[in-house]
Amino acid sequence: MITPPTDPQRVDAADVRSTNLAVVLRCVREQAPCSRADIAAATGLNKTTVSSLVSELLKRRLLREVGMAGNRVGRPAVMLTLDGASYAAIGVEVAAEHLTAIAVDLTGRTLLSWRRALPPEARTRLVTTVAALGRRVVTRADQDGRTVLGLAVALADGTGAGPGFATDLAAALQAPTFPVEAGRGADFAVLAERRFGPHAGVADLVYLTADPAPAAGLVLGGTPHRGSLGRSGDIAHLVVDPAGPACACGRRGCLTAVAGAAAVARRATPPGAEAVAQTKGAPVDVDQRIDAAVARAHAGDRPTLDALAAAGRDLGGGVAVLLRVLDPAVVVLGGHYAPLAPWLLPGVHAVLREQEADVDGRRVVASTLGRDAAALGAAGWILDVVEGGRLPGDHLWSAAGAVQPRLLT
Amino acid sequence: MITPPTDPQRVDAADVRSTNLAVVLRCVREQAPCSRADIAAATGLNKTTVSSLVSELLKRRLLREVGMAGNRVGRPAVMLTLDGASYAAIGVEVAAEHLTAIAVDLTGRTLLSWRRALPPEARTRLVTTVAALGRRVVTRADQDGRTVLGLAVALADGTGAGPGFATDLAAALQAPTFPVEAGRGADFAVLAERRFGPHAGVADLVYLTADPAPAAGLVLGGTPHRGSLGRSGDIAHLVVDPAGPACACGRRGCLTAVAGAAAVARRATPPGAEAVAQTKGAPVDVDQRIDAAVARAHAGDRPTLDALAAAGRDLGGGVAVLLRVLDPAVVVLGGHYAPLAPWLLPGVHAVLREQEADVDGRRVVASTLGRDAAALGAAGWILDVVEGGRLPGDHLWSAAGAVQPRLLT
Repeated sequence: MITPPTDPQRVDAADVRSTNLAVVLRCVREQAPCSRADIAAATGLNKTTVSSLVSELLKRRLLREVGMAGNRVGRPAVMLTLDGASYAAIGVEVAAEHLTAIAVDLTGRTLLSWRRALPPEARTRLVTTVAALGRRVVTRADQDGRTVLGLAVALADGTGAGPGFATDLAAALQAPTFPVEAGRGADFAVLAERRFGPHAGVADLVYLTADPAPAAGLVLGGTPHRGSLGRSGDIAHLVVDPAGPACACGRRGCLTAVAGAAAVARRATPPGAEAVAQTKGAPVDVDQRIDAAVARAHAGDRPTLDALAAAGRDLGGGVAVLLRVLDPAVVVLGGHYAPLAPWLLPGVHAVLREQEADVDGRRVVASTLGRDAAALGAAGWILDVVEGGRLPGDHLWSAAGAVQPRLLT
Repeated sequence: MITPPTDPQRVDAADVRSTNLAVVLRCVREQAPCSRADIAAATGLNKTTVSSLVSELLKRRLLREVGMAGNRVGRPAVMLTLDGASYAAIGVEVAAEHLTAIAVDLTGRTLLSWRRALPPEARTRLVTTVAALGRRVVTRADQDGRTVLGLAVALADGTGAGPGFATDLAAALQAPTFPVEAGRGADFAVLAERRFGPHAGVADLVYLTADPAPAAGLVLGGTPHRGSLGRSGDIAHLVVDPAGPACACGRRGCLTAVAGAAAVARRATPPGAEAVAQTKGAPVDVDQRIDAAVARAHAGDRPTLDALAAAGRDLGGGVAVLLRVLDPAVVVLGGHYAPLAPWLLPGVHAVLREQEADVDGRRVVASTLGRDAAALGAAGWILDVVEGGRLPGDHLWSAAGAVQPRLLT
């Protein structure tokens, strides 16, 4: 009648120390520059403990001292900040037609941001392609004297990469000294919006993207929501109009068919406009069509504006579903939707008003991180893992155990 | 640069005591009968502390001793269980055409379950009607020598009850000695499925009902999800088919129009079948139509079976949306859907297979709590509040501060 003790409060001393190190690290991130006494006051840890924890974090080059505080009552105190010089976290996004690599330091400052086309032939050897890019970023970090904290790959829905990607990538990187992880792009992107965008502290946040397939990343009640099978926000084939256009899946009116990246690019390229992109001499892919549509919309091209307004209305049908089911505080339009947002949003808002799903239309906004959110979120996730108590150099150090974006490996 | 301390770890001694009392209470619920030593082993609290906490819980009549343990190594120990004799928690559901009142003891055992028709004239003075029913349940509890822990009212979406209901009800009950709360029916029902149904431990659980309006109660990541405005799962006007039947809201193809309680009742009452219910002499309302449809379906009436199969397919369109967005482990069909589930589920499952939203069809099941889930969940929520550390008799005692179903007051 008595089950074995499984009390989650029971933790060993190493776990407590690790947790407290993370508490101090997060405290400094939020309040830097701050003194040991400030940390003790903010965390409730006693000053001796804080001093010991800070010493260890200084030794591990996660914190650094930045001189004495001025304008303070009492004895001047040594101020602390995160050490921005010692580490790099790497995020790579695999989208349908391009790769983005971003490296950030421990403070979240962007060290580099590279974008590369992903031509069809490279898509067939994706692990090799991503490994080559990853190696270049790692080399750059090495040259800067930085230790790589980890590399996370954000895989867009519909790119075909799946379970095993991170394992294969780690193998291709030949025994990297840092964790290599992979997850869904939308899941990383929503974390980026919260960490680097204007949505910190928003408990219920949705990131909506489509590159190539519509996908939503969810933070609910302050926590990433992945679902029971890791498939939450898998809205590519959400049927928004059973009588709508045919989808490649064989059904009709899927969100992909009305408002996926290819559908939006096609719709936003009215007859005659195609030549604009083609004259550039490159194959006309979705990325280029969308760039061209943005340019035409900026120029006030009426057929393009009308097409984007109509696409926005169809996208609004999908957004209405997310609002009704989840009631998030904010829905961020990211990925390819971000640059098109000025012309998509009026249609989205109109449908939400008509359906009484969001009467004042203020909950749906464009990403301020543009198309980089997924890569940035992947890099930021590596920082989340560190701040979650898995410090570099620890025997424990592995991103895989962290409760964070769903992992495909 | 230093913000005021806001550390959640900082709690005062009374809070710690209260939390520990709740930890012991939950431990006994899960493991009863168990000894003080068992509790210490399971919770990690030391034996002296456990003894002190148990003494207080015995004094408050929340626990009771049930004799010595047999078949145990060492000195026989006094065993403890929850005290089922001293308290009653009351839940009332307000549905479109009926009220359900349920009282449970501290162990969750049902003390009474009453169902009353809610005729149109009573709907116009809902507070008075619910207060009258509530008083009768309280009187019964008093007669049994039980202290009422609280009364929670589950208000179905679409019944028109809103903010202020609990305050008005408390006023009508004339200074009750227990907390009076109100919340959405679906939110309480999903908690009932988790506490009293077969879905304990399911992290991502959805309860779907329609009495009168379709509504979903959500538990995600083990936590109730209410949304930023308290409107999550508000799917009555989710558009499942823009070309579908007209809805009373003026739009077309809302879930209410294709699979709300009235729509299902109407569809499941083929021409000619109406007379069956009418011969009973009562006004033909939705509750009665559904009871009659269940009877005809049991009897194998082909038009009824065909109509329910078609309604199940339309309901499946709504369930597919919930599965794609949330990826729950289980979707429970409750309320009016529960008695109809044997005939609705094949259509639901077929659509989910066709849309590849749930290939094996095993995630959508009928409620085993039948139509009582919301009232039971409301009563269970009162127990949740107690187990959350707000013990009866405490100065603190108020359900309103608990993180539980969204409250309409």
